[in-house]
Amino acid sequence: MSFQLKGKVIFFATNNINKFNEAREMLNHYKIAVGMLRVKTIEIQSESLEEIAQTSALYAFEKCGLPIIVEDAGLFVDALNGFPGPYSSYVYKTIGNEGLLRLMNNVENRRAKFQSVVAYFSEELKSPVCFKGEVHGEITVKIHDGNSGFGFDPIFKPVNSDKTFSEMPTSEKNKLSHRARALKSFAEWYTKESDL
Amino acid sequence: MSFQLKGKVIFFATNNINKFNEAREMLNHYKIAVGMLRVKTIEIQSESLEEIAQTSALYAFEKCGLPIIVEDAGLFVDALNGFPGPYSSYVYKTIGNEGLLRLMNNVENRRAKFQSVVAYFSEELKSPVCFKGEVHGEITVKIHDGNSGFGFDPIFKPVNSDKTFSEMPTSEKNKLSHRARALKSFAEWYTKESDL
Repeated sequence: MSFQLKGKVIFFATNNINKFNEAREMLNHYKIAVGMLRVKTIEIQSESLEEIAQTSALYAFEKCGLPIIVEDAGLFVDALNGFPGPYSSYVYKTIGNEGLLRLMNNVENRRAKFQSVVAYFSEELKSPVCFKGEVHGEITVKIHDGNSGFGFDPIFKPVNSDKTFSEMPTSEKNKLSHRARALKSFAEWYTKESDL
Repeated sequence: MSFQLKGKVIFFATNNINKFNEAREMLNHYKIAVGMLRVKTIEIQSESLEEIAQTSALYAFEKCGLPIIVEDAGLFVDALNGFPGPYSSYVYKTIGNEGLLRLMNNVENRRAKFQSVVAYFSEELKSPVCFKGEVHGEITVKIHDGNSGFGFDPIFKPVNSDKTFSEMPTSEKNKLSHRARALKSFAEWYTKESDL
């Protein structure tokens, strides 16, 4: 590694370029420089996004020794006891939006939320710090696919919106998304900490 | 720890007493003594049962230094691209048998299989050794709940059987179950290895 660490530089351990770009845009507002780090982290099986993100952050830090953030997210559907939750990405890959709508067929309570947890770890800390963001909404009856978003976005409509995440331009989604909220909360904490 | 390690003694890292009893019965036939070890292991997120079991075995070994087996299992449904697979236990807890049947409503191809992987590790080995067992069958149209089994057993009927796993006495299920097959395969290998 030949990074020149000056000022506030942190590294986002992810292989998802979209997630990274979203984070860079948000953190730039706070003058926090962020590098993308393609390091193989482990994700543990747990019903707690915090526990998953914390373990990944520690694992990534062990590998590279750099100040690290990782992010984990999931869709939690009330009527399905929180399913698909932390396994959203696997569930999307196997049964997809069609499968989730099938499970919600004739179900009256359509409340759901997206949650995101950002975990940060660096050598100054004793344990990873977590920042949570969430957005409440509902599962639509049909698929509303716009040009935007990914995963379950075409069937999730945030409260006070008449569009699904998939029907919003990225900039609009980023204003209210769970991930943006978690990153914002991290950025505010980080800015304050580094001023101490 | 104050175990007296004489002869063939291995430890099964699990918190599930039913799994342990099943393993003990099977391994006794091979004169392999097995202790139950309630050690907190980690399970990683992966689509490969082998990878999950291997990592858990290494992790458990690091904690206790004893010869260790761990077991991981899942139900893989053809028409659902393998769902719920390695996340069967979480999926059972959230959407249950009813949810899985809903996803299979009017689906013609009902083929499915249960898979089990036993991973063994001890200080003589360079990396954990895995043993796989599987049983093919189909997802029933309704729930057939007997007094036996757990999880998705009431909706899984093995090939050449007119009963679901849940309608079989434990002894009958154990004759053909994925877990019994993986354990048998481990026991045969272990017996041969320790004779060398």
